Amino acid sequence: MLVTKHQNTINNAVKANHERTFYSQYPEHPKAYGEEAHAKGVQSYQQLLGKPFKQLLQTGETGWSGEEVSPYTQEVLGVSYPIFAVSDLLSKAAEAGKSWGKLPVAERAGALTETLERIKDYFFDIANATMHTTGQSFMMSFQASGPHANDRALEAIATGYHELQRYPPHLEWEKPMGKISIRLYKTFKPIPKGIGVVIGCSTFPVWNTLPGVYADLIAGNPVIIKPHPKAVLPIAIAVSAIQQALRDNGYDPHICQLAADSSDHLITKELCEHPDVKLIDYTGGSAFGNYIESLPGKTVFTEKAGVNSVILDSVKELGPVIENLAFSVSLYSGQMCTAPQNFFIPENGINTANGHVPFNEVVQQLKDAVVGLVNHPKMGAGTLGAIQNDQTLTRAKEARHLGGKVILEGGPVTNEEFNKARICSPTILEVSSADTAIYEKELFGPVILIIKTRDTDHSVQLAKQMAVKYGAITCAAYSTDKQTKDKIEEEMNSVFTPVSFNLTGFIWVNQHAAFSDFHVTGGNPAGNASFTNQEFIVKRFVWVGNRELAE
Amino acid sequence: MLVTKHQNTINNAVKANHERTFYSQYPEHPKAYGEEAHAKGVQSYQQLLGKPFKQLLQTGETGWSGEEVSPYTQEVLGVSYPIFAVSDLLSKAAEAGKSWGKLPVAERAGALTETLERIKDYFFDIANATMHTTGQSFMMSFQASGPHANDRALEAIATGYHELQRYPPHLEWEKPMGKISIRLYKTFKPIPKGIGVVIGCSTFPVWNTLPGVYADLIAGNPVIIKPHPKAVLPIAIAVSAIQQALRDNGYDPHICQLAADSSDHLITKELCEHPDVKLIDYTGGSAFGNYIESLPGKTVFTEKAGVNSVILDSVKELGPVIENLAFSVSLYSGQMCTAPQNFFIPENGINTANGHVPFNEVVQQLKDAVVGLVNHPKMGAGTLGAIQNDQTLTRAKEARHLGGKVILEGGPVTNEEFNKARICSPTILEVSSADTAIYEKELFGPVILIIKTRDTDHSVQLAKQMAVKYGAITCAAYSTDKQTKDKIEEEMNSVFTPVSFNLTGFIWVNQHAAFSDFHVTGGNPAGNASFTNQEFIVKRFVWVGNRELAE
Repeated sequence: MLVTKHQNTINNAVKANHERTFYSQYPEHPKAYGEEAHAKGVQSYQQLLGKPFKQLLQTGETGWSGEEVSPYTQEVLGVSYPIFAVSDLLSKAAEAGKSWGKLPVAERAGALTETLERIKDYFFDIANATMHTTGQSFMMSFQASGPHANDRALEAIATGYHELQRYPPHLEWEKPMGKISIRLYKTFKPIPKGIGVVIGCSTFPVWNTLPGVYADLIAGNPVIIKPHPKAVLPIAIAVSAIQQALRDNGYDPHICQLAADSSDHLITKELCEHPDVKLIDYTGGSAFGNYIESLPGKTVFTEKAGVNSVILDSVKELGPVIENLAFSVSLYSGQMCTAPQNFFIPENGINTANGHVPFNEVVQQLKDAVVGLVNHPKMGAGTLGAIQNDQTLTRAKEARHLGGKVILEGGPVTNEEFNKARICSPTILEVSSADTAIYEKELFGPVILIIKTRDTDHSVQLAKQMAVKYGAITCAAYSTDKQTKDKIEEEMNSVFTPVSFNLTGFIWVNQHAAFSDFHVTGGNPAGNASFTNQEFIVKRFVWVGNRELAE
Repeated sequence: MLVTKHQNTINNAVKANHERTFYSQYPEHPKAYGEEAHAKGVQSYQQLLGKPFKQLLQTGETGWSGEEVSPYTQEVLGVSYPIFAVSDLLSKAAEAGKSWGKLPVAERAGALTETLERIKDYFFDIANATMHTTGQSFMMSFQASGPHANDRALEAIATGYHELQRYPPHLEWEKPMGKISIRLYKTFKPIPKGIGVVIGCSTFPVWNTLPGVYADLIAGNPVIIKPHPKAVLPIAIAVSAIQQALRDNGYDPHICQLAADSSDHLITKELCEHPDVKLIDYTGGSAFGNYIESLPGKTVFTEKAGVNSVILDSVKELGPVIENLAFSVSLYSGQMCTAPQNFFIPENGINTANGHVPFNEVVQQLKDAVVGLVNHPKMGAGTLGAIQNDQTLTRAKEARHLGGKVILEGGPVTNEEFNKARICSPTILEVSSADTAIYEKELFGPVILIIKTRDTDHSVQLAKQMAVKYGAITCAAYSTDKQTKDKIEEEMNSVFTPVSFNLTGFIWVNQHAAFSDFHVTGGNPAGNASFTNQEFIVKRFVWVGNRELAE
């Protein structure tokens, strides 16, 4: 029944996945959800504060824990979450998975699309929760944790719907053998691999979590979500919506469980190392990501750290380019895995349609644009958001000591609504191309490095070297020369890094659109998985074919 | 041009891959290739003996080596192969890979299909070479290394043709933003992962090698084939055919190189551990396979050892079942990875349409059938073939000491054509279900274990346990009861083992048909890969998407 209800949505999503033209099931503008929605969301969010979160349909907790602090108010949220024994989570997942894994794929797709519709009812609650755990602006919180996350989830459902129905469920096979023929009945079944664990991060607790969750679920696997202890509420609301929709439609809500823990007793390793856990999705730092990837007998999907480059070669008009880049680096204070960090600029400067611009002038314009943006009374605070945690804040504040020449020193910015917001505006450093020790690391947060190179070939060589050694999720390049663009594309693509050329206006390199842009290629050290290519789905189940002699 | 020539073949293969009904591009019967072909093949093969193999289009060898001995004649073949430095192989692969990886997928598919047509011209040479390196009968040598291997290769080409063209190579993306819209040009490219190495085995040197070779090549990767030093000639002939077809059509033959080595200086580890090698396909023992799987930074496809089960529950008529099984276990003396080894039979015997048959009677009938087959003057020698190597021969000869009750002791069988053929007929042992130490190992070769169980549930439980712990590629089950069949299927499928039910007549559990049966599921310790599901292809390349602001 839910299949029928959502067949059109699923069909559209499958088509969009293949055609990769613009598609979105969930409008990204808050106003699309009614005039009342925003205010009601604030209210619902506030009603959650200072209380145990009892909306989950999971019982048997061994205690309650919560340690979230708003990056905007510095106040504890006071929400506590039920803590479960790992063995309890796993046995409930295994039990619930038995029937879930046997459902026809189309039925699972219908049920899962219904859960997305239920999450939609909580978009504004989730947005406020995201804002006050991650430090994202309201708008980013809304879009990333709401419609964009749901679109990515639907993308995974649709990819699974297609892949798991690739082969006929049963058929008769007849082999001619001269005078006789051999006839076999054959069946083909996509058998789920087993229990999945999805490990969330503190900056995008919903967006980075839902793709793995829905990929596991559409392939028939029960899933356990282990959120970052500092960013639980947004995904807790989403999981409670999923569980309610499942229960209301007769499915066991334990196919999708929340496994909150606390900083002083993390359960991630215990969960991941358990032999019953077969699938792991992870977003976070490289050290832990490498540990996850090294676990034997697990199918693992990671998004780790990367060093994203900007290659400036030549432009038509410098102003709009610099504006675009200033916004890209300032947006959510560089706490996006897609944010540019390393700007490679030739020492001789760059050509524009209006003449040559020397290196120092390009740097000056970037500095001015960043300063102008962050101090803009209407734009500044909203663009920067707040810094999620103290480590990132410290890194930002100390950035001026990293080495090189300090072009812009980060510092306090006023947020009129939240005067205690944890903010540090971007620091810009200029370094030489020999200073690899400085620019070969991901400096998560508002730190921009300008690397003076011999020429664009040198820029490309260094950007490529960074991607192959330390990973890269994006590369922004600016050139008006076809041959140069081809070279940049070929070189960066050869290290599995996508290139965005000549972006100006209302599109930024940070943005990856569901149903069209693959998020992370999976081919360099920034991660081994990609939202959502075929591999992201087909590694979660196993094709098994049975045969029987036809009578 | 080659695309046009072979478009029909490729389209048919893509369709067959999806529909999984019977399909074959290369007829499996030798007579389909003309009356002269057989005799000419023997001649061509004999002309290769006792000489350096100079048909490869590779130069710069550091020496020559060859150590093959015919399992039929015990004579050395005397063929020597050029030995190349690993660094030389890799630099030539990298160089050749540059242009190959940039060709349109359709062009690669056309060129590769042409190489299969060239291999076809050597089917009979390859058959003789296979016979005298592996010990397979002529018929199996012809089919497995000829048409069946080519069909599997075409299956990989077709899967790649489909997967790599899944997304549009370029498109315009337009996102409506109220009064304006954002327009981007996007391109999607399947970027090859890098150099592939395919490690061959001594029993199926072509059949187990070509799928990985063609999967690497269709995805744009150059490939290096490291054959087993005791079974080089069959694949050397195939590689020389591939190289000639490539050269004749203007492609660099170094995209597919042969890397022969010698037992006293194996290069497998040096090749596999080299950082430039990104893809490894392996067929062989579990210990080395586990090492291959543990190599960091490699995408690995393995087929290792497994313990295949037969579950006997109930049958219509026992005779045809026993005959079918006797043939399955005797075929190529159990040296097929798909051959059954462990027979689980309930202690109370089994039901048939003609009444109950006690356990001992079932065992007796199996013994009689095996004895009848191996001593059959026309069938025996051809079914058994010869034993590939001394270790397998020793294992077969010593099998009677493994423990349990000796039902049938293996021994010499006369091959009238080759009186020195290395043969040992099957040994049958009866063991108790508690004797796991005996039956939990793959006993590669002509050894059959009959395990007396409490009942069919017990049989299923033990067969499942073997599959999950030690891997399984096949399971043959016999039951006339729907509920029992469902249970066997569900339990064995849950450990990613396919089940073949009630096979009698001219179809055996050992056989996996290209375009229909997946070979190995990839889900249990018998191997992590499957000929040819989506995963076998999509892990060999990376989707990279580029964007540019539309003017």
